[in-house]
Amino acid sequence: MSHTVEILSVGTELLLGNIANTDAQMLSQGLSELGLNVFWHTVVGDNPQRAREAVALAKSRADIIITTGGLGPTCDDLTKNVLAEAFGKKLVFDEGSAQRIRSYFQRTGRPMTDNNLQQAMLPEGCTILENDWGTAPGCAFRAEGVHVIMLPGPPSECRPMFHYRAKPYLLSLSEGVIASHTIKLFGIGESSMEAQLREQMNAMTNPTLAPYAKEGECELRVTAKAATDEEAQTLLQPTVEQVKALFGDKVYGVDVPSLEYVVLHALTEKGLTLGTAESCTGGLIAKRLTDIPGASAAFKGGIVSYTNQVKAGVLGVPQDMLDQFGAVSKEVAAAMAEGARRVLGCDVALSSTGVAGPDKDDRGNEVGTMFVAISTPQGTHVRALHLGNRPMRERLRTQTASHAFDLARRYLSGLDYGK
Amino acid sequence: MSHTVEILSVGTELLLGNIANTDAQMLSQGLSELGLNVFWHTVVGDNPQRAREAVALAKSRADIIITTGGLGPTCDDLTKNVLAEAFGKKLVFDEGSAQRIRSYFQRTGRPMTDNNLQQAMLPEGCTILENDWGTAPGCAFRAEGVHVIMLPGPPSECRPMFHYRAKPYLLSLSEGVIASHTIKLFGIGESSMEAQLREQMNAMTNPTLAPYAKEGECELRVTAKAATDEEAQTLLQPTVEQVKALFGDKVYGVDVPSLEYVVLHALTEKGLTLGTAESCTGGLIAKRLTDIPGASAAFKGGIVSYTNQVKAGVLGVPQDMLDQFGAVSKEVAAAMAEGARRVLGCDVALSSTGVAGPDKDDRGNEVGTMFVAISTPQGTHVRALHLGNRPMRERLRTQTASHAFDLARRYLSGLDYGK
Repeated sequence: MSHTVEILSVGTELLLGNIANTDAQMLSQGLSELGLNVFWHTVVGDNPQRAREAVALAKSRADIIITTGGLGPTCDDLTKNVLAEAFGKKLVFDEGSAQRIRSYFQRTGRPMTDNNLQQAMLPEGCTILENDWGTAPGCAFRAEGVHVIMLPGPPSECRPMFHYRAKPYLLSLSEGVIASHTIKLFGIGESSMEAQLREQMNAMTNPTLAPYAKEGECELRVTAKAATDEEAQTLLQPTVEQVKALFGDKVYGVDVPSLEYVVLHALTEKGLTLGTAESCTGGLIAKRLTDIPGASAAFKGGIVSYTNQVKAGVLGVPQDMLDQFGAVSKEVAAAMAEGARRVLGCDVALSSTGVAGPDKDDRGNEVGTMFVAISTPQGTHVRALHLGNRPMRERLRTQTASHAFDLARRYLSGLDYGK
Repeated sequence: MSHTVEILSVGTELLLGNIANTDAQMLSQGLSELGLNVFWHTVVGDNPQRAREAVALAKSRADIIITTGGLGPTCDDLTKNVLAEAFGKKLVFDEGSAQRIRSYFQRTGRPMTDNNLQQAMLPEGCTILENDWGTAPGCAFRAEGVHVIMLPGPPSECRPMFHYRAKPYLLSLSEGVIASHTIKLFGIGESSMEAQLREQMNAMTNPTLAPYAKEGECELRVTAKAATDEEAQTLLQPTVEQVKALFGDKVYGVDVPSLEYVVLHALTEKGLTLGTAESCTGGLIAKRLTDIPGASAAFKGGIVSYTNQVKAGVLGVPQDMLDQFGAVSKEVAAAMAEGARRVLGCDVALSSTGVAGPDKDDRGNEVGTMFVAISTPQGTHVRALHLGNRPMRERLRTQTASHAFDLARRYLSGLDYGK
């Protein structure tokens, strides 16, 4: 029983390029993990004729059609009308949905116009997918051998509606369960990771192994299908262990959200506090730590020392060191981390200094020359980075921050960090 | 002469959700600005049969087909093969493109395998779109009344290939030029902005007015078509002035990249320096400033005072003030900004303190309760924010940082900032 899926997005804002089709990406990822094959993405505008043609085509070539968008009053509920028509279904008023819409407006204190109640008109006999994140309910039905699932367009509604409403519906179509683990790596390139795994990946069918790369990090998702979760886990475990053994301490975690999360978690567990001193990353290290709710359990604060005056005046980096080696040097990186530990009164401090570009610094250091340092009760260690000199300020800053986190997670896990 | 465009993206990575189709967004935006109507986005995988069907359909309904992806050796140059076949064209070897591919590999020091030269096989009689950002050349041809433009898939290649290669080709299809200005606003909601402009927007044809909303800010793009740039500017100017008059000091700039850019620029012009003291934004204000190359001309640095200990110890916020009012208070916001001015030795300082969630603070302040302050030689002013209590930590932090920048740009422009 192999299903083929078409994702049909309805919305002029996509065709104007106002937004990217992140719904289609999110759905594709989720559907792939369910073992469903997505063969087409189609986008049409809020235009009934073109929407009708797109639905007719999808119906002829896919056996699961998932739509996003076109459910609200501003587009006259285009998607529901067209899909109902294509499958010869009437729209009928659902009092339960109407109640939910009324109470949504009451709860948010916004005035409700009558056309909002149109959203309670749903294809007869459908499964209603209740929307706890907005007003337009989704729905699902099966007709003429095709499963149709309609989801709202705003990503903040589409994502939870998929995970909490559509996914259970789709899971009921397939026998058994699907489980996966994500192995996160730092310090290895995507191509090198893929080269080491390619043969194995191609040979695997259950579990499967899929690589992803983003912002200087890599991850591997292992996914298995089985009758029960327990059996799926039994299938997954050997592959997870094998990948961990293959890549050693480049693996920073399994099913963890990020490097900075791993660092915060390890600090909290050990009862240690962290501080930062940032030059080239200009606040990004602190920002990434404080993206995490509850960061204050371990993160005390940081100094963004963007000028030498702040490096000397606030962090206490000796002026003659700045004069002799320049701000972009391993000596200053070390002194910044030590200064942050002292000034912020924390157990561990991270620092960064370097040239994020677009130009060389006044001492001729190339763009991409970076130093990150960690200072701990056991001493201070600097990692020198040469991140290439292509003009990608944002990526250079992100990678530099990640290297600082990598120093910290290695120190906190008792791994080699170059010390 | 009204053209209809289909964007056809080829790539299994899109169907797996590994990446979002940002190429389609970028192209849609660029094409809309050229006055071309994008009616469909289609995505298929690296599958010849489905690619053939998609091309046949696109050929039947669009008169401009723009493809992305499927040009490299890893997919056997799928897109070129399928398009050439669909339009009855042969692929012929282009020595000039081969030379460019060879020298690309020499320049980047990477080894070139033979299949890379397949990329020099191009549809006979096409216009070659030279790729200075990667190896696979693009191409364009007209056949059977349809314009076909093929671009590489990686966004870092697709974007410049569109702007520097495809756009001139498309401009030659239309008479005259297209020019636009972007008016940026802060402090007004998208729906309120649209409500004030809806009738006018719908009535306009040249220039057109299009609203965009992102991350708590709004922008309006005014676009005009004319025979010459001068005439286009003459069409644009009255609308720009009208919008500026309508929204008054909520307009923070025209054709400027961001609020923080406007702040940095005004500081640099006046020879003033800036510092920050951040609690709830945790480094985001400093990060956004230092995203801008050359920020060091005005930005001296910042203190991320995530704990009361750092607020008191580094910024000098009086302990009894922290005890009496709590960290989330207008008093502490003011004292943080004043402390930053003193400690960092800067002319102007911005501060933030508040509850970013997901939970209330220990004094019962709701999520979304935020204070931002500005301290200047003329005194200190606090703006209190109630940003709603939905659990959107990232958005709350972004909006809080933007409000801090808004205080600064108002102060620097001599506008009312509540003082």
